[in-house]
Amino acid sequence: MLPVAVDAMGGDRAPDEIVAGARRAAEDRGLPVVLVGRPGELGDIGDLEVIAASEVIAMDADPGSSVRRMKDSSLIRAAEAVRDGVASAMVSAGNTGAAMASALLRMGRIRGVARPAIATLLPAPGTTPTVLLDAGANSECNPEWLVQFGRMGAVFARDRLGVEEPRIALLSIGEEPGKGNPFVKKAHGRLTEAQFEGARFIGNVEGRDLLTDAADVVVTDGFTGNVALKTLEGGLKTLMTSLLTAMSARQEAAEAARVLGPELDGLYQQFHPDTYGGAILLGVQGVCVISHGSSNALAVENAIGLAAEMVGANVVGHLTGAVGDGG
Amino acid sequence: MLPVAVDAMGGDRAPDEIVAGARRAAEDRGLPVVLVGRPGELGDIGDLEVIAASEVIAMDADPGSSVRRMKDSSLIRAAEAVRDGVASAMVSAGNTGAAMASALLRMGRIRGVARPAIATLLPAPGTTPTVLLDAGANSECNPEWLVQFGRMGAVFARDRLGVEEPRIALLSIGEEPGKGNPFVKKAHGRLTEAQFEGARFIGNVEGRDLLTDAADVVVTDGFTGNVALKTLEGGLKTLMTSLLTAMSARQEAAEAARVLGPELDGLYQQFHPDTYGGAILLGVQGVCVISHGSSNALAVENAIGLAAEMVGANVVGHLTGAVGDGG
Repeated sequence: MLPVAVDAMGGDRAPDEIVAGARRAAEDRGLPVVLVGRPGELGDIGDLEVIAASEVIAMDADPGSSVRRMKDSSLIRAAEAVRDGVASAMVSAGNTGAAMASALLRMGRIRGVARPAIATLLPAPGTTPTVLLDAGANSECNPEWLVQFGRMGAVFARDRLGVEEPRIALLSIGEEPGKGNPFVKKAHGRLTEAQFEGARFIGNVEGRDLLTDAADVVVTDGFTGNVALKTLEGGLKTLMTSLLTAMSARQEAAEAARVLGPELDGLYQQFHPDTYGGAILLGVQGVCVISHGSSNALAVENAIGLAAEMVGANVVGHLTGAVGDGG
Repeated sequence: MLPVAVDAMGGDRAPDEIVAGARRAAEDRGLPVVLVGRPGELGDIGDLEVIAASEVIAMDADPGSSVRRMKDSSLIRAAEAVRDGVASAMVSAGNTGAAMASALLRMGRIRGVARPAIATLLPAPGTTPTVLLDAGANSECNPEWLVQFGRMGAVFARDRLGVEEPRIALLSIGEEPGKGNPFVKKAHGRLTEAQFEGARFIGNVEGRDLLTDAADVVVTDGFTGNVALKTLEGGLKTLMTSLLTAMSARQEAAEAARVLGPELDGLYQQFHPDTYGGAILLGVQGVCVISHGSSNALAVENAIGLAAEMVGANVVGHLTGAVGDGG
């Protein structure tokens, strides 16, 4: 397999944690990795190779203009490496909008895809995670696009999670088809009419169903999806913090909390966004994994693992089959 | 104070838990309460009086048509009791849409209010809860309405939580004014131009800020607000369940969990939707509190407490002052 191109400059903890994660992926898991960034600033990179890129797109930079202007940025160079057959996939913990724009501009869309979408995994205890898309690529959507999001999400649920016949649902504010805003009602109609191969549309779900077995793939516009995702992350973080604070306030409680260490660790890992290796941009001509800005070495390692796994599973080929030709 | 009219027939656990909660509010907290429902079906109601209503709007009934058709329903009768000066407020754990429609039809809007909105409280550890509105009354909104939602939410934050100069924020997918969908960008413009008395607009917040001190009042359309609210409730419930499951799997962990009883109880109460007594419909000519369909006696007692408190604080008078005359 060609190496996974890792944007060494993107992310709140770049380059140190990015390089550390890339090294772990290469050294501990035997995955082929190439770093992209400023060679002199990467510290001890072990045996990794580097694709030189002199510019860095800041986390808060405007995605569109930065990508157009900074042609020697690590993000653009990573996307070009995939386009040029030098790398098999790209991974970045940098500016999400700029990572999407780089992938879209340099790799291009899969023929027939109206808009690429960001798919993210939400933990559902006792069952496979729920695929949520669009989690933020398109803040405004056409109802038709949600049919494609459903097709792409189903491919991802199969390739990533092994779900045989994914159940696709639409995120709304009530289960009945008539519930929701005008956009959602139209999307419900399109999804009901659409033919899905090896997947099926099961109707609306609500926000409370996201972390359950109610559906395998949940489609929504990128604004609502991003609000739901961040609300969930914020809520779980607040609850976890409150739990730890409460447990440390009383002597006996603190001791009991220590006994519960393995359980709390397991829970923390199950619900932590880094566990699943980040989000994936579906619909471009290559694998593009975008992990949290706050990613540490473990998150980067997992993101590289996810990218390699998706290359191995031929997710782009399957997406082309499922949505190509205007499907 | 006139009694709070409690819909004894609405809710998954009606009438038993509703009557139990109403009795506790009256007997333990000395609040004036009148039940509304079928007198023969309410069991032991102690000293409470009953406003007779022969019909019950089912939890899953279509709100608009039920409210028009079932003129002797407990919801319509409760709203009429407020309109006619027989009750000071109404409380229901029944069909949310029908409760809103009953309040709107019978009490009417405050003059100048474009659309009433549902305000709900989200726990923010270490500080006052965040007021989120609209949490589901209007699945489609006009950007201008969000200015009124901000004014109404600020009144509620003052009257309910004692926040002196509430900070109003707009729910979006990035902090910068340019982030969001076209609706949110327009709403941002309106909120920036608007004058707020005793409150101020501080810009966008994201989903992850809802349970923090980032803002006192967060405004959004009713679709996004409802998705965020239910996502949060579902996520917290899943995490709590996973926590309890994990803690009971190993003998020593189960013992440690027992030691942590007080901490876990406190946390559960802090994050449980019932703690704050339910949502309030702001913008109608009376106090209307809508609690969860799953409400138990405690939730109903708290909802009655909230209703009485809002009557005592003259929230309707303050709302009229803040948004009346097309403000």
